[in-house]
Amino acid sequence: MKVHVSTTSLTDALAHVERVIPARSSNPGLSYLRVSLQGDVLTFSGTNMEIDIEARLTADVQGNGIFALPGQVFGQVVRALPGETVDLEFGEREVRIVSGNFDTKLQLVDADQAPQLEFPSEFSGKLRAAELSRVLSSVRYSASTNDYQAIFRGVKLELEQTHTRAIASDGFRLAYYHSEADSGLSGNLIVPARSIDEIIRILDEGEVGIVLGEGQFSLSTNGYRLNVKLMEGNFPDYNRVIPKDFPLDIIVSAAKLKEAVARVAVLADPATNNRIDLIIDNGVVNITAQGAYGGAQESVEVEQEGTDSQIALAYNAKYLAEAIRPLDGELRIRFSGVITPSLVYGVTDPGYLAMIVPLKTVTD
Amino acid sequence: MKVHVSTTSLTDALAHVERVIPARSSNPGLSYLRVSLQGDVLTFSGTNMEIDIEARLTADVQGNGIFALPGQVFGQVVRALPGETVDLEFGEREVRIVSGNFDTKLQLVDADQAPQLEFPSEFSGKLRAAELSRVLSSVRYSASTNDYQAIFRGVKLELEQTHTRAIASDGFRLAYYHSEADSGLSGNLIVPARSIDEIIRILDEGEVGIVLGEGQFSLSTNGYRLNVKLMEGNFPDYNRVIPKDFPLDIIVSAAKLKEAVARVAVLADPATNNRIDLIIDNGVVNITAQGAYGGAQESVEVEQEGTDSQIALAYNAKYLAEAIRPLDGELRIRFSGVITPSLVYGVTDPGYLAMIVPLKTVTD
Repeated sequence: MKVHVSTTSLTDALAHVERVIPARSSNPGLSYLRVSLQGDVLTFSGTNMEIDIEARLTADVQGNGIFALPGQVFGQVVRALPGETVDLEFGEREVRIVSGNFDTKLQLVDADQAPQLEFPSEFSGKLRAAELSRVLSSVRYSASTNDYQAIFRGVKLELEQTHTRAIASDGFRLAYYHSEADSGLSGNLIVPARSIDEIIRILDEGEVGIVLGEGQFSLSTNGYRLNVKLMEGNFPDYNRVIPKDFPLDIIVSAAKLKEAVARVAVLADPATNNRIDLIIDNGVVNITAQGAYGGAQESVEVEQEGTDSQIALAYNAKYLAEAIRPLDGELRIRFSGVITPSLVYGVTDPGYLAMIVPLKTVTD
Repeated sequence: MKVHVSTTSLTDALAHVERVIPARSSNPGLSYLRVSLQGDVLTFSGTNMEIDIEARLTADVQGNGIFALPGQVFGQVVRALPGETVDLEFGEREVRIVSGNFDTKLQLVDADQAPQLEFPSEFSGKLRAAELSRVLSSVRYSASTNDYQAIFRGVKLELEQTHTRAIASDGFRLAYYHSEADSGLSGNLIVPARSIDEIIRILDEGEVGIVLGEGQFSLSTNGYRLNVKLMEGNFPDYNRVIPKDFPLDIIVSAAKLKEAVARVAVLADPATNNRIDLIIDNGVVNITAQGAYGGAQESVEVEQEGTDSQIALAYNAKYLAEAIRPLDGELRIRFSGVITPSLVYGVTDPGYLAMIVPLKTVTD
């Protein structure tokens, strides 16, 4: 059984599958890549138990068969191949890999040692891949990395006829992205944040097919199929924590605000939760930090709206920086008060919303 | 006291000094950067006790003075400055840093808290900076990282009227670079390998002035002055271990050999010292490795010379790869036998020599 294929196509297809395959595992089967030859298609698959990935690649294939071999070693060899094309020759106990002057034999394991994964063949829903990528990547940063609130380590994905929406929160802040795209499906999914990272990496051009299953959902895009395990539990109702009254709004260039916050944050003191202070007054936001080694100050022009003409409050610099990072063009910050949540909205991209809570300062 | 200077010049000058300044140290003085304003020159200096570095920068300077402040924090602030120029305003207790919209005050410490370093003002020897860089960077990799042979953690630099030469060895291999450049000095220096790294980073264009001192040597190049502490002890006589008889030589393209070794090495087994096997016969070197997951094989054409027509031997792949890495164009390998040292020479660059010892294999 032989395959002749371009080295670049092979490297790309393998990279996404290899990334979920552990180098070592208490379940040795997980470290194996499954390779299937059928018709003119070469298929790779692997899993980390949270996400199953399959990559299909059109190639010059002779013969049908199913094989298994260590995923990390195969990936490392393929990345080092010298030629523009590669020939894979599968025997009973080893696969010969020839590319340019390079000639390697890798040992195979029994094909049934690699996880046998099943992927749906029909995907009833669909979205533009770039749109789903934007929805997920805008909120990913806000998911928790703590163990004690397991549900907050997931990202909630709401699929409705009227919208596609993602929400992530760590209990202290929240990010939300609302797209009017209709997937044709209806459901609430809570997806582990690490699986969201893999989905974002695979989403590229064209469309993504989606189907909801029992305890998982599946995606199909651009030659890849994924089964993504869902988390169990309920995400708290984020609408209840979002304030309704905002005595002051500002509209500001996202790029200028990002740069100013990044520079002032250098001086922020980790011992005070990276505190930076904002004073908004007279069409200017004045940003300051006072750390162990001195202070920093920077001003950015803003457009002010609302009943109040000024406000002074403090944030964790890291939380403010992450809340504004997904935005380009102009953004709006709505202040509900000096110790109650502030909201960050996209003006140029109105689908985005983030909530951050000001630091309680001694003088409040 | 004020300084007006381009942000790029400031960042570059500071980067080299900042790198040797520890963020924290049991000797707190070491974490401080010394800043001096005099005439139209801004000077920074710092030390890690193994290497002292001073950077001099022509700038628009008003007033004279000496100041000290935490080196790492100042470096971080300077790298984040938004404007093309920066104004530094030194007061009694703080320095104000203004660049674009950015306005920071950093606290100063007493000037005498920072190490007070003295650099020679006359440099009796000189070399082209690029030549000294080539000499040192060609052998650096071969220095030891082990604690038990302290002297091998240094690089030996021989300065003679007829040559400038560097040697490094970890006791198992050796690298040597011979330049016919005459520094005008005569001496044998053993320099800690970490200080060699800093010297290589600073060497750029033009000339480097050199002067030998008591337990140290000093360099001056391109606005920088360095005092480099020397190691005490004697480097073993490398001439004694270099074989004299070579029944077989090969000449081969450095690029092709490097690539082939890198690819075959992927399969080499760490449990057998990353063994790769070379068989030279009939104008071809055949390189193979056999690891836990299979084997790799690659062939490269060579030009053979000598009384023997073939040889088969094994190396640690890492040692062979490192020995050929400094070379471009063509290289020569001289084989003294299957268990005695092999020598790698530059053909295109004849100043370079490396010695590696074949692995003892079970069949020997």
